Amino acid sequence: MPYRSFDQNCSIARSLEVVGERWTILILRDISIGFHRFEEIQRNLGIATNVLADRLATLVEHGVVRKVPTDRPDRFEYRFTRKGATLSPVIAALMHWGDTWESPNGAPRVIVHTACGHETHPVSTCAHCGEVLEPNEIKTAPGPGATAEEIALGVRP
Amino acid sequence: MPYRSFDQNCSIARSLEVVGERWTILILRDISIGFHRFEEIQRNLGIATNVLADRLATLVEHGVVRKVPTDRPDRFEYRFTRKGATLSPVIAALMHWGDTWESPNGAPRVIVHTACGHETHPVSTCAHCGEVLEPNEIKTAPGPGATAEEIALGVRP
Repeated sequence: MPYRSFDQNCSIARSLEVVGERWTILILRDISIGFHRFEEIQRNLGIATNVLADRLATLVEHGVVRKVPTDRPDRFEYRFTRKGATLSPVIAALMHWGDTWESPNGAPRVIVHTACGHETHPVSTCAHCGEVLEPNEIKTAPGPGATAEEIALGVRP
Repeated sequence: MPYRSFDQNCSIARSLEVVGERWTILILRDISIGFHRFEEIQRNLGIATNVLADRLATLVEHGVVRKVPTDRPDRFEYRFTRKGATLSPVIAALMHWGDTWESPNGAPRVIVHTACGHETHPVSTCAHCGEVLEPNEIKTAPGPGATAEEIALGVRP
């Protein structure tokens, strides 16, 4: 890799270490829509096999996907772990943003919420009060994992 | 760039064309927590100035951030447009995933919902019924922007 890793005490940076490499999110998208074998994903994305092998190895190493045996001993499938499944809000949010701002001919795909049966899109809400988390109504502050220096700096304006 | 662009009829791929390059999400994070000048962002991230200039140019070109004049004619600030502000759910979801799975010493930063006054994290909910969008209760289907071929393929298992 031409760049050094993100060396920050930051959960966004740590997430990007796992899923921030080029192609990785699209590989996860493919697994989520039903492509589970290396050849299927490779064909659908049209990426180099060494790049796909590298990205899948990173995802397996970090416990995001696991290799599952099939009936054929020489063949296995990539399936989400629970950790991988919980990336769903990230992928759905990226999709909704692209639908809203970058797809002038309409959404290429829509999300269906099988629990209620309707087409939908994700709405990011507050775990405490349940209201929509409007971008201008959130701020951040040092958390339990902050360094002493970060606590001293506190919240920037 | 060593890789070709994502050439897909997919809103996730289109979002990644704008915000999927290495460092871009961390630049957006810095703007969101109050770093608005080139030098501030560069110093905080410790990245090469040419990389930062390239990423900011892409964000300005796509209308995600805008350059705002300041009192000093030789100095301006980078601020979110509405399009940029609506990336908040993506960034918050990445942060929450990293807090959950990649930060064993606790969250380095916490989100405060200023509307209700409590520490919180984002919950991805259904725009139709308001319930939590559980990963195993969503599927995707061709949308209005699907190609004829994609409509013919329909939903994969």
